[in-house]
Amino acid sequence: MEKTTVSIITIGDELLIGQVIDTNSAWMAQQLNKAGLWVQHRVAVGDVWDDIWNALDEEGRRSDVVLITGGLGPTADDITKPLLCEYFGGKMVLDEATLQHVTYLFEQVFKRPGALLERNRKQAEVPDVCTVLKNNNGTAPGMLFNKNGKIFISMPGVPHEMKGLMNDHVLPLLSAQFALPFIGHRTALTVGMGESMLAELIKDWEAALPAFVKLAYLPNYGMVRLRLTASGEKDLVTKTLDEAFAELKLLVKDILVADEDIPMEQVVGRLLAGLGKTLSTAESCTGGNIAHLITSVAGSSAYFQGSVVSYDNYIKHRVLGVANETLQTVGAVSEETVRQMVQGVLALMQTDYAIAVSGIMGPNGGTPDKPVGTVWVAVGNKEKVEAQKLFFRLDRARNIELTSINALNLLRVFVLQNS
Amino acid sequence: MEKTTVSIITIGDELLIGQVIDTNSAWMAQQLNKAGLWVQHRVAVGDVWDDIWNALDEEGRRSDVVLITGGLGPTADDITKPLLCEYFGGKMVLDEATLQHVTYLFEQVFKRPGALLERNRKQAEVPDVCTVLKNNNGTAPGMLFNKNGKIFISMPGVPHEMKGLMNDHVLPLLSAQFALPFIGHRTALTVGMGESMLAELIKDWEAALPAFVKLAYLPNYGMVRLRLTASGEKDLVTKTLDEAFAELKLLVKDILVADEDIPMEQVVGRLLAGLGKTLSTAESCTGGNIAHLITSVAGSSAYFQGSVVSYDNYIKHRVLGVANETLQTVGAVSEETVRQMVQGVLALMQTDYAIAVSGIMGPNGGTPDKPVGTVWVAVGNKEKVEAQKLFFRLDRARNIELTSINALNLLRVFVLQNS
Repeated sequence: MEKTTVSIITIGDELLIGQVIDTNSAWMAQQLNKAGLWVQHRVAVGDVWDDIWNALDEEGRRSDVVLITGGLGPTADDITKPLLCEYFGGKMVLDEATLQHVTYLFEQVFKRPGALLERNRKQAEVPDVCTVLKNNNGTAPGMLFNKNGKIFISMPGVPHEMKGLMNDHVLPLLSAQFALPFIGHRTALTVGMGESMLAELIKDWEAALPAFVKLAYLPNYGMVRLRLTASGEKDLVTKTLDEAFAELKLLVKDILVADEDIPMEQVVGRLLAGLGKTLSTAESCTGGNIAHLITSVAGSSAYFQGSVVSYDNYIKHRVLGVANETLQTVGAVSEETVRQMVQGVLALMQTDYAIAVSGIMGPNGGTPDKPVGTVWVAVGNKEKVEAQKLFFRLDRARNIELTSINALNLLRVFVLQNS
Repeated sequence: MEKTTVSIITIGDELLIGQVIDTNSAWMAQQLNKAGLWVQHRVAVGDVWDDIWNALDEEGRRSDVVLITGGLGPTADDITKPLLCEYFGGKMVLDEATLQHVTYLFEQVFKRPGALLERNRKQAEVPDVCTVLKNNNGTAPGMLFNKNGKIFISMPGVPHEMKGLMNDHVLPLLSAQFALPFIGHRTALTVGMGESMLAELIKDWEAALPAFVKLAYLPNYGMVRLRLTASGEKDLVTKTLDEAFAELKLLVKDILVADEDIPMEQVVGRLLAGLGKTLSTAESCTGGNIAHLITSVAGSSAYFQGSVVSYDNYIKHRVLGVANETLQTVGAVSEETVRQMVQGVLALMQTDYAIAVSGIMGPNGGTPDKPVGTVWVAVGNKEKVEAQKLFFRLDRARNIELTSINALNLLRVFVLQNS
């Protein structure tokens, strides 16, 4: 079966000077991949006429479908729409349906008083050679063009507008247009073994994989995801992946955290929800990030009670009951303190389990004894508390993230052993 | 002055199936831009021989410098190094300095027992036509190649390894090699006016900007950043930008939050630090994200005391003292509740100011009265509490982010009016 190939072009100077991180492309690629399309090329270009024009030329030669995001806003830095009009040989016309929609949005949703601004009225103008795709989440419509047998679709860069257009129009249109293969993935999340050692552990199994099955190692924050991918006829793909994945899971069973592509906070959430148990956290150096990760999972209110972010020592003492003597002698970043924090938050929030962390995330605050990156983590229940010292040598943001993931994993192991 | 142009090629299937968001390119672009280089093209390709080869051809024709990240790990999904060797016409040789460094890392830093694995030893093999750039943060070295007068540099995709190589080698090398122009930016952060209205407000000023000054509108979470960019001779760039920016700041003074490119949490942090005042938060629906944002700023311990994440109503009552009657009659998502949460956390943490939020972030939990996206926010000090109802119609993650940013901005305004 021939692959149907896609190129993604993102337009905007903000991407090229690094002021904005491109999250759209990853989301689009996920959805396209699920639908059986293969994103083979992603390109970012600035708000520069020739660069956009050349990207359309190049990607149109390369792929069956070219998806374009960005450059459609109401302000003067946007040159994409006139360029598309010229590139596809059309002239600009007012689209009545889009004008009605824009008018409705400004009057009824944004509640802006007075007549439509000329620049907003202009958003209803489109090249007469395109098919207009209604944008239910904003004013700039999607536009579909055909050239040399290739499909080009332009969407605004605002993430939820792009997502709406993809779901409402683009994915259904492409699925109807092409005979798409089935693409299957299986992902195993492992913790506690580096990429090289893991590769040694599974090398015979990896060497024996059928040629149409690809394996990727995706290391991230002390975890490694192993992803199997295959495309083709659905039954064959499914059967082959299931068999290979079952073997893999046996090989890595001691370090396996999840047999699907979910984040650590969701693994922990499912474990607690399944047991009907509750959790609270007492956070110093992570500043609420563990609670934030846990509550980013929909439905977390079933097992998460709350958190005390005790950034200052006064709060560790007053709210969590850590002894002043402990804070004055061994200090806030110590085994004794995190153990007392666990006990304090368990008593305060009346939960089955608790996590506590205290450390020095940097860039300042380190001492010869306790350099930046030193962290104490404790997890426990009313009967038992376990503590561990960790050390990370990264920047502040990554130290916070690594501490959070490791603390959640320690809790996961504790719950499995003590439930 | 001729622009020195850069292309960035990122390699890895994980980028094309959307399993990983590319944060490297944004960081690289920022640093290159500061140094006076112009990133004109960014490309992502999969672990596919022909696609990588073609990208090297195309970007080598397009730009003066081609930076390549990814595809250098120790595992079998990596084909980049042999490809580079063939592309630049070399043969693989063992690099003694890299071997010593890899051995040192495994023995002294990773503390792995036993002899070096063959796959790790292989990381010390490099094409004999490259200049090796030492990777102080990992095992895979950077490699510099020259072809047809263009510079190609390959780096691993692990973010802190790439950053180390950029800072230690790539940026100094490029600055020494090229006569780079000065590139200047000025950024204004505004809150409370949409992109179109803002464009109307400043259109005369925008029309009068010199041709070599570019203006970009960057909307994000209810804020719009206005960015001025110019490149050329340093004194002229600086003078022109300073004058234009001073005029802009006057035009937008009522909605101006910051006159540099910093996030809201840093604006609030500086305000509090400048006044010598302290803050605490009481968070329900944001689940600790406001505390996480505040503490992501280095030095936040100077003004941030802590937070109570009262996800469950029991915690709102027990820890923050919200009346059970309030929770039972008007409910947790109400003006009365967030006012009591502010008072509760002010008393508990003894801070000068506090923020409280309670709402329904979705996808479930809404009612006809209080649909998903309904949020109450309160900010205050011991004398006065102000509350506001907000409504967002996005997904869970964006509702949490928007609520957090808006709550921080409400506090900012309150502090300015009540300090």
